[in-house]
Amino acid sequence: MRFTLEYVDSETRARAGRLETPHGVVETPMFMPVGTVGSVKAVSPRELRRDVGAQIILGNTYHLYLRPGLEVLRQAGGLHRFMGWDGPILTDSGGFQVFSLAALRKLSEEGVWFQSHLDGSRHLFTPENVIDYQRVIGADIMMVLDECPPGDASLEAARRAHELTLRWAERSKRRFEETAPLYGYEQALFAIVQGGVFPELRRESARALVAMDFPGYAIGGLSVGEPTELMYEMVEVVTEILPADRPRYLMGVGTPANLLENIARGVDLFDCVMPTRNGRNGTIFTTEGILNIRNRKWQTDFSPLDPGLDGYVSQTFTKAYVRHLFQAGEILGLQIATLQNLSFYLWLMREARRAILEGRYRSWMNEMLPRISRRL
Amino acid sequence: MRFTLEYVDSETRARAGRLETPHGVVETPMFMPVGTVGSVKAVSPRELRRDVGAQIILGNTYHLYLRPGLEVLRQAGGLHRFMGWDGPILTDSGGFQVFSLAALRKLSEEGVWFQSHLDGSRHLFTPENVIDYQRVIGADIMMVLDECPPGDASLEAARRAHELTLRWAERSKRRFEETAPLYGYEQALFAIVQGGVFPELRRESARALVAMDFPGYAIGGLSVGEPTELMYEMVEVVTEILPADRPRYLMGVGTPANLLENIARGVDLFDCVMPTRNGRNGTIFTTEGILNIRNRKWQTDFSPLDPGLDGYVSQTFTKAYVRHLFQAGEILGLQIATLQNLSFYLWLMREARRAILEGRYRSWMNEMLPRISRRL
Ligand SMILES: [Zn+2]
Ligand SMILES: [Zn+2]
Repeated sequence: MRFTLEYVDSETRARAGRLETPHGVVETPMFMPVGTVGSVKAVSPRELRRDVGAQIILGNTYHLYLRPGLEVLRQAGGLHRFMGWDGPILTDSGGFQVFSLAALRKLSEEGVWFQSHLDGSRHLFTPENVIDYQRVIGADIMMVLDECPPGDASLEAARRAHELTLRWAERSKRRFEETAPLYGYEQALFAIVQGGVFPELRRESARALVAMDFPGYAIGGLSVGEPTELMYEMVEVVTEILPADRPRYLMGVGTPANLLENIARGVDLFDCVMPTRNGRNGTIFTTEGILNIRNRKWQTDFSPLDPGLDGYVSQTFTKAYVRHLFQAGEILGLQIATLQNLSFYLWLMREARRAILEGRYRSWMNEMLPRISRRL
Repeated sequence: MRFTLEYVDSETRARAGRLETPHGVVETPMFMPVGTVGSVKAVSPRELRRDVGAQIILGNTYHLYLRPGLEVLRQAGGLHRFMGWDGPILTDSGGFQVFSLAALRKLSEEGVWFQSHLDGSRHLFTPENVIDYQRVIGADIMMVLDECPPGDASLEAARRAHELTLRWAERSKRRFEETAPLYGYEQALFAIVQGGVFPELRRESARALVAMDFPGYAIGGLSVGEPTELMYEMVEVVTEILPADRPRYLMGVGTPANLLENIARGVDLFDCVMPTRNGRNGTIFTTEGILNIRNRKWQTDFSPLDPGLDGYVSQTFTKAYVRHLFQAGEILGLQIATLQNLSFYLWLMREARRAILEGRYRSWMNEMLPRISRRL
């Protein structure tokens, strides 16, 4: 993996870069559609490429480990081949899922025992076996196992989690260095900065991880219930410390406005279920604002779903038609809404990148924020 | 609308034809994917064209009348524009749905009162207003309102239904001739042959409708629970009487084998929810046979979903992957299964047509039947 900075904005900390992976180039800032269980929900890999313009997607070690299971993925030759996506994949380590989804966690220095949210079966994740699992999955970018405390964690709890995450990061890196990829291409391992909403912990975490020299850094444990301003503050505190020449990934964030604000604070990569999950619920992001497509006001609105985007679904289908599909419970409604939302997120990243490269990110962002945050 | 016969098989009654509609040509024999409520479930119009190769789809007056309602369709400029499909559309009159879905039917000479299966609201369908509704929908091919008795109807009940259907066909034709299309292109009206499983009634029905001179004829009231052999017998009885120069549409049929057998008996057009509905349940039709993709035997079968078809889903996704999607409840599984099944149905129709044109329909069918009916 190779990361090249192409431009750093002088008014903000926004950056434009190129991340070269064995499965292709990712132009940053970039949003990664979430493919939790081996598919980006309701979207085929072909549509991800052609319609969404996705350059990299996210998979989940926790979910893939449980289903289809590592033996199936190994026999398939890894996740890329299993799911028919030949672009880059980043996998989350499962830390966040173990701490949010699984039942009866038992945390120790060694790792974390948990019960599957599917069938109650008991499993142990350690920093080491989670590296092994991601070798089997074959992600271009792997993540260390971290402890992800809740958004209202106390200083003491946040400190314990951050310190454990540091020790786990060392073990992860060691295991990574002792093992080899299974499918003939290199994999990279990113660290995860923790520290809750406490600036001093965040700084400690970032400094210690930078000293370990990872090729990329994620900021974890945000967008978990804390006030938005605190999230922005933590990102600022951390990106001040992270080395300029390594990609920075803010995990699980967020709204279109969150993305623009965090790009201004120096973040390169994002993932979030919001465009896909909200799409399935009828919340549609457009270049004109956010609309609840179930609302009666769209019943006879025959304007395109998003007049500002060129793509097939944005231009072919009207608001009235998509509303009808949601009212009638037709699956095609979810498909259209998901494609629209992902297309919008990726469009927003391309526009942001262009504004950065042209040295006008701040003014572009200030113009864009009210437009994309408006409720229609 | 213009129908041209290109070839009639000498060993069977199989025919190859061209049906020219205002929205394009339909090469028969042809299967029409069912788009009940304004979408072919889980398939976009673009995929219908590019992946499935659909040439004509079916809409449902009953469903569209209830939702989105005629006023929305009128303002949209008809169903084609509403749903973004610019190919031919045939609409069922709603007769079958009123007699199978709606509650508390009250049938009279005038028409049929029924309660919506959605909200219990009361509505009256008459031969006349159903023509008016299909003018608003803008189908290329409209169907007369018919009475559709159950598969186990007595001779007396089948006779009453067939006689009422005849009187309604006359009223439908009159209304059709008194009214004009709303969107600047011609529409055609097909009659529906009834008569249950009684050959003499079927003959009476067909003869009477032929005397009324419709541009096309449907065979209704089959595939409603009667034995398959009786269905084939009724089709034979009817196609003996129907004029050779008019298209013949067998409503609601059926399995791949049913299609081939009925083509041999002179049918040109089919529709059925089987490829879409069964696909959503994990039953997948392929050129090698029928498979239940949920079965454990596919867990590590990394062969293409259908090695015999060229399309994207057939070649890109493995049986193991599609099984995983169904096991995990991922929407993409339904999408892939639906596209595969419709692609298979349309492939089967293209192959049948080729065999007819090359004068080898019977031998082709005899070779194909065991292959496509096999349970894998
Ligand atoms: Zn999120
Ligand atoms: Zn059917």
